[in-house]
Amino acid sequence: MQTKGSGPEPTTPAPVTLHDVARAAGVSVATVSYVANGRTNVRLSDATRLRVQQALDDLGYRPNALAKNLVKGTSKFVGLVTDGVATTPFAGQIIHGAQDEAWRHGFVLLVANTDADPQVEHEAIEMMREHQVRGILYSTWYHREITVPPALDSAEMVLVNCYAPGSDARAVVPDERQGGRVATEQLLEQGHRRIAFLNTTWESPARTGRLAGYRDALAAAGVGFDPALVIDAEPNQEGGYAAYEELRRLDVTAAFCHNDRVAMGLYDALRVRGLKIPTDLAIVGFDNQEVIAAHLRPPLTTVQLPHYELGAAGVRILLGIDPVPTGSVSKLACPLVPRESVASGLAD
Amino acid sequence: MQTKGSGPEPTTPAPVTLHDVARAAGVSVATVSYVANGRTNVRLSDATRLRVQQALDDLGYRPNALAKNLVKGTSKFVGLVTDGVATTPFAGQIIHGAQDEAWRHGFVLLVANTDADPQVEHEAIEMMREHQVRGILYSTWYHREITVPPALDSAEMVLVNCYAPGSDARAVVPDERQGGRVATEQLLEQGHRRIAFLNTTWESPARTGRLAGYRDALAAAGVGFDPALVIDAEPNQEGGYAAYEELRRLDVTAAFCHNDRVAMGLYDALRVRGLKIPTDLAIVGFDNQEVIAAHLRPPLTTVQLPHYELGAAGVRILLGIDPVPTGSVSKLACPLVPRESVASGLAD
Repeated sequence: MQTKGSGPEPTTPAPVTLHDVARAAGVSVATVSYVANGRTNVRLSDATRLRVQQALDDLGYRPNALAKNLVKGTSKFVGLVTDGVATTPFAGQIIHGAQDEAWRHGFVLLVANTDADPQVEHEAIEMMREHQVRGILYSTWYHREITVPPALDSAEMVLVNCYAPGSDARAVVPDERQGGRVATEQLLEQGHRRIAFLNTTWESPARTGRLAGYRDALAAAGVGFDPALVIDAEPNQEGGYAAYEELRRLDVTAAFCHNDRVAMGLYDALRVRGLKIPTDLAIVGFDNQEVIAAHLRPPLTTVQLPHYELGAAGVRILLGIDPVPTGSVSKLACPLVPRESVASGLAD
Repeated sequence: MQTKGSGPEPTTPAPVTLHDVARAAGVSVATVSYVANGRTNVRLSDATRLRVQQALDDLGYRPNALAKNLVKGTSKFVGLVTDGVATTPFAGQIIHGAQDEAWRHGFVLLVANTDADPQVEHEAIEMMREHQVRGILYSTWYHREITVPPALDSAEMVLVNCYAPGSDARAVVPDERQGGRVATEQLLEQGHRRIAFLNTTWESPARTGRLAGYRDALAAAGVGFDPALVIDAEPNQEGGYAAYEELRRLDVTAAFCHNDRVAMGLYDALRVRGLKIPTDLAIVGFDNQEVIAAHLRPPLTTVQLPHYELGAAGVRILLGIDPVPTGSVSKLACPLVPRESVASGLAD
């Protein structure tokens, strides 16, 4: 059960919220909370209690693990240092996952947003250590290689959405390669053989990883790799729009876009020419960006970045619940979110 | 100087970041940080120092107030309880503004995301009080009326992006009415007289406030209010797309959309019919949603929700820096962000 967006169940689902249950049962969030927390000092009809309990069971709501361990008179801290909670809708999901997981284990999350200012970062880390945090998650708003800040040198810490080659730091990142592979497979399965990849111009693990996944999928399907079909595009709507003319010359039937914003621009380029998706061009995006992907016409088949899970996994590694070796980089799967931008009747 | 989006200066600008300065000076963020913080134990050429200092001055960078007061061995806490950091790109800006302002005054922000679960909310507030927070900001992801949670009853607190009529709570919210007015004025100034308002179907201060502002602007321009021109639309792309046929029948020349997502759907509806923006229809949105507004074709004229400023103002009120009376609701302006979806040559 996924709570955000309209896609089907990803492999690592977002948690069911009281909102979901309330909607399913047709009652208020407060009512669900009373039932979920076993409160009997509230007047509710048996029918209502039963309906809510049924919805809680059906949706698989996890009873209030969040709050249960939160207050013990001994709450300890876990720190999260991030370079940009405000620059992207995604970073919020990392914080959300980290907080939920921290609370489950009796820890409170201290969050510091640094805007990537090394001085602010330094002071934020010092502040956290002064508050005797159990450890620190160091997170970036986009997946990238970093150098571990000196202030973290002797701290217990885990890198989230970033990694530091050659260091001892444990890291958890999205599996870009697997994501690129499932995106491309989706197009191959529909019979497409000339598939363009609108890759980003930014050097990043997403750029190299998604390309590797694209090549993996082609190779597994026995389709030769044609470097001419890989196009560099600015990773936004303008990049997708501008790339159309080159796609036309390449005579492709499908395009895997580096992200949903590129796909959105490409949609616009097709629409002004009176062309249809997926019949004139099948399209797959990446990110499952909430305000865009499900709301394009047609809704966009894409791949989900597992930000909530990155935050949660970071906490589990930090607390030793998921033991991983020093220096290891854990990769979390990016599940496919199928919608309607890939043709279903094209198989050759 | 605005750091996000491509619009011109709003009335309450977002702060200049080291990133902005680094881009302007053509150097790394680290280099800017060294110069901004007056570090002399780093080898930089005089030319570089000069260029960075020039960019710092030009852009009006505020030297590192953030970190300066952060670590004193006596950092105290301010709490922020929010019902949805993860459900919207906006909530992150409230947290960002609150954190920056808290740090400026030697406080650290404790953030709790509750998903609107009353039980989690209760425990989060208890946790914060246990940590002896100086006070608590209680914030919602969309502007709405609330009832103050009982756990906050005797706490020092400020409501952010919400308000509680009849209570003593001080609140800071966006000025929806002023926002609706400037959006409509922008269309009136270009000579439009039959202006539709695609309002949301959700009962909310945004729904009533923006409508009041639309009416204010019409009245001030001597244009009669025609209730038939106010259309209820789902506040997303699907709502904007579906509303087109009714707009056509109403024979309007311009539309003020409740939010940018509605505008995006309306763009699609026009495009599939071969119609042009702004010549066939002038459009204004609301929200200045980062991944959408500046990247539509043409870029969307819209109104900015002042989320960063709401978070910062909440902290200033909480700490008594901006003294306001008990029970007062402070309204922050929503500045216009002019782009290209309103015709410039239509004045009558």
